[in-house]
Amino acid sequence: MPFSAPVSDFSFLLDEVVGFSDVAGTDRFAEATPDMVTAILSEAGKLCNDVIAPLRRDGDLKPAVLENGVVRTTPGFAEGYSAIAEGGWIGISAQPEHGGMGLPLTLATAVNDMMSASCLALQLNPLMSQGQIEALEHHASDALQQLYLPKLISGEWAGTMNLTEPQAGSDVGALRSKAEPNGDGTYAISGQKIYITWGDNDFTENVCHLVLARLPDGVPGTKGISLFLVPKYIPDENGAPGKANSLRVVSLEHKLGLHGSPTAVMEYDGATGWLVGGEHDGMKCMFTMMNNARLGVGVQGIGIAEGAYQHALAYAQDRKQGRTPVGDGTGTIIDHADVRRMLATMKADTFAARAIALANAVALDMTNATGDAGWAARAAFLTPITKAFGTDTGINVAEMGVQVHGGMGFIEETGAAQFSRDVRVTAIYEGTNGIQAMDLVGRKLMDGGEAASDLLDEIESHAEQARDVMPELAEPVWQASESLREATEWMVAQPMNDRFAGAVPFLRAFARVLGGHFHLRAAMADRGGARERLARFYIKRMLPEHTGLLAHARCGSKDLYDLSEEDLVA
Amino acid sequence: MPFSAPVSDFSFLLDEVVGFSDVAGTDRFAEATPDMVTAILSEAGKLCNDVIAPLRRDGDLKPAVLENGVVRTTPGFAEGYSAIAEGGWIGISAQPEHGGMGLPLTLATAVNDMMSASCLALQLNPLMSQGQIEALEHHASDALQQLYLPKLISGEWAGTMNLTEPQAGSDVGALRSKAEPNGDGTYAISGQKIYITWGDNDFTENVCHLVLARLPDGVPGTKGISLFLVPKYIPDENGAPGKANSLRVVSLEHKLGLHGSPTAVMEYDGATGWLVGGEHDGMKCMFTMMNNARLGVGVQGIGIAEGAYQHALAYAQDRKQGRTPVGDGTGTIIDHADVRRMLATMKADTFAARAIALANAVALDMTNATGDAGWAARAAFLTPITKAFGTDTGINVAEMGVQVHGGMGFIEETGAAQFSRDVRVTAIYEGTNGIQAMDLVGRKLMDGGEAASDLLDEIESHAEQARDVMPELAEPVWQASESLREATEWMVAQPMNDRFAGAVPFLRAFARVLGGHFHLRAAMADRGGARERLARFYIKRMLPEHTGLLAHARCGSKDLYDLSEEDLVA
Repeated sequence: MPFSAPVSDFSFLLDEVVGFSDVAGTDRFAEATPDMVTAILSEAGKLCNDVIAPLRRDGDLKPAVLENGVVRTTPGFAEGYSAIAEGGWIGISAQPEHGGMGLPLTLATAVNDMMSASCLALQLNPLMSQGQIEALEHHASDALQQLYLPKLISGEWAGTMNLTEPQAGSDVGALRSKAEPNGDGTYAISGQKIYITWGDNDFTENVCHLVLARLPDGVPGTKGISLFLVPKYIPDENGAPGKANSLRVVSLEHKLGLHGSPTAVMEYDGATGWLVGGEHDGMKCMFTMMNNARLGVGVQGIGIAEGAYQHALAYAQDRKQGRTPVGDGTGTIIDHADVRRMLATMKADTFAARAIALANAVALDMTNATGDAGWAARAAFLTPITKAFGTDTGINVAEMGVQVHGGMGFIEETGAAQFSRDVRVTAIYEGTNGIQAMDLVGRKLMDGGEAASDLLDEIESHAEQARDVMPELAEPVWQASESLREATEWMVAQPMNDRFAGAVPFLRAFARVLGGHFHLRAAMADRGGARERLARFYIKRMLPEHTGLLAHARCGSKDLYDLSEEDLVA
Repeated sequence: MPFSAPVSDFSFLLDEVVGFSDVAGTDRFAEATPDMVTAILSEAGKLCNDVIAPLRRDGDLKPAVLENGVVRTTPGFAEGYSAIAEGGWIGISAQPEHGGMGLPLTLATAVNDMMSASCLALQLNPLMSQGQIEALEHHASDALQQLYLPKLISGEWAGTMNLTEPQAGSDVGALRSKAEPNGDGTYAISGQKIYITWGDNDFTENVCHLVLARLPDGVPGTKGISLFLVPKYIPDENGAPGKANSLRVVSLEHKLGLHGSPTAVMEYDGATGWLVGGEHDGMKCMFTMMNNARLGVGVQGIGIAEGAYQHALAYAQDRKQGRTPVGDGTGTIIDHADVRRMLATMKADTFAARAIALANAVALDMTNATGDAGWAARAAFLTPITKAFGTDTGINVAEMGVQVHGGMGFIEETGAAQFSRDVRVTAIYEGTNGIQAMDLVGRKLMDGGEAASDLLDEIESHAEQARDVMPELAEPVWQASESLREATEWMVAQPMNDRFAGAVPFLRAFARVLGGHFHLRAAMADRGGARERLARFYIKRMLPEHTGLLAHARCGSKDLYDLSEEDLVA
């Protein structure tokens, strides 16, 4: 079942739907000419199709294992990683002074989408490095940057993020790992960290861990946390990996999916670390990269949705079953109305989620290029939606992909189930989707709803322009936006826990309306074409979900707590 | 994580919500007195809690395997099976003349729900036997009944169903297995069957396969299919298992879940079989039991929803994370609004699905007891809803259970993921949920919508009675029922493929409204109590989904086919 990277979808989205020309028009990203963009997307697509996607099944069937303390990775992953590194893809949006390509995050987003679709288990490794690169660029000392960034960007070394501890998951502030000053500018890091993605591997020279820990004078909670860089091998005077640091992989988790990605329990026992950012500034440093990381995870969901869609589509085009209701009745199951409904839903939602993610990336690029506060607010507002809707879409599309396969969907050899197992965690890590929704109705409405309102203005303004041309599509989008505006105003006026009680359905409704907006843009750019037909499907069938979601979103918290713990147990 | 069978939920549902007193009031089921019902539910609950539920994890971790042609089952399953058989649970609703208890299907449904929650992989074995018992009771000759039924009901022998072939899944009529008369009243059965649940085991004396095959003069399609009983060991003159029949397990599938249940590819090579029912009447025989089998699968979904809910609830009551918004802020995550929303959704939907299934079973019992055509139509109408909504609920609740666990949900040791893997196939087998929806809007509306209309009349009549007492709950149920009535009338007036194009959202909307109805009944029976609070949650938050679903349901098929295969590939 070969994968075919959806390069033309990205070109269309960038050119016609999410306004990438704004990014390419800035001085900072002037290099991102149409030719450059085409070359990047095509080259990445080719790598995904030919090298990365063929590794997906092996990642599932031949998991990473821990043998005598050493992680052994899936056969082929080392070569796949080399291909990614040698193509320069790890540093696609890293700063050029340390070897990065300096390209817009929007392009990195498109490339990461394709790579997630191809083999998420492998792609998580460079993704972790990308996060670390960003953190070091913003917060590390020049000396650390000069030592680490070239190695991370070239892929010679890999990076990880160490946040979670058994008692500190969503509540990072509960962490207990400690950092003691060694007196020489370094620190001794001790503690146990869990869920460390790619905590080790057998194909990079070094593995660099970013670890959250508390200094002796760190106050309890998030305000007393600092960030440290703790390499597996301490660099010697030439910057080459030297003696082993006091850290180890204790065990690897046995997970529902992503078997090719070793998820480690890490033990630090007085390991030597270097402070990144100021003392007690750990959470601030993490926040810098959190928007990008959450965008990145949303895109993982979208990538898997793409993979699952292609897989199911190919099956539906091949499988014959029963007399079909069109043509001479001998078609494959794609001609059955309900199968076509499922495939159209998968495609339409993947498109919607991808448009949201790319618009989010455009807003981040514009923020970086212009420093404009409006773009920053737009990016911040879209981020939890991208993360939660992207990953929910990944889960739902993968589930539908299983369903399209019928009985074959439950058989592991088919590969359909792997998408649904692999994607499941994306709704959990990097802030659960519940946390995302709380971020949306909490922090992201602290401006009194201004960022939301700007977005709704834009949606309605575009719908008004489209009204004359395709009223039956423009009108429902405009109406839905108005309902969402009322719900947003309601949210802003509520105490926080009443917002939280409806946060998840509110986020989903916002995503549904944004999806309607981007589908409408696509329809306007492709009148009479396939994208208008897909938009029609989405706007008539999927968009109406917002009604029920908004009713749910506006219930407040009273009924939830009237329903006592005893009621739930009874 | 001990399982606690929800015995009191069943008592409440039977007594107050689904009208079980009608069943107990018939001559046929006069034995089902309140004391008897209580005893049955308690006894079954105890077996589930103490014996069956502890086998669930082992079923996952120590799958059934095929060694040298012999199936070896999960350690402990043989003992679990014996306990089920010795308790008489296999024949709970089988006729007493061959050793059955002759109890209402409604009770069997409650018991199967608890057993599915405990260990679906094991429970599938007796469930297959129950289906075979029913088929033989209705269609087999007296001689076959006297030979096989006592053994199947006692559990000494097990039964299987052999329908599917590689090219014949949803389209059963495409099957190629052959039956040749042997001239002595028996037939030689040849062909390959796939997805045979519990195709073999190592704990019953014999395994009896019901096999669909085509006689030499059988016409193509479903009309030329006959049903045969093909035992693993041919009974000797004393009815004891004699020489081995010409059949074998070729392989076992590697599945997403239900690892403890061996799913076999079976090869029949001139195996001796006995005709069940008339020649070419195979599909008619299958249809007799299809309602019960589909009800049974719906209940599997509901059982797993129960198991997943209890598992997630226990975790949420134990896990501390962050400051909670109520009390002194030191509660567990159950006090976070979004976690409580998830748990309440899980509980409310499980209740709704269970009420629908039990009402369905009541209608079947009333049909069996009275022969009344109205009850038969009610049962037939509810069946696809029970099956599809029960299994969708199982999938959604298990997914939410994973989410409640956060990062732990993705780790297999936690057990949360097993529920979601195990339940996945229930939306596929025994007719995919798409097929169920097509059955609902096709065959089940062939009466011009009369059965649907009777049901909606009942819903509205009850809502009118409740209106004075709890208008804020009764009114939305009444309104939703009216919207559903309009949509049903729309459906009835459409050509078939326009119905099919909206079948799945129509079925979901119907389930949502039925759920509202049963929650309202529960609220009326428990005013000011936990069940009213849960009903409020459901009616305010879940019921509004019907709006979007009905909009989707009424789109017709044109937009689906305007969206061409090329559009979907592009």
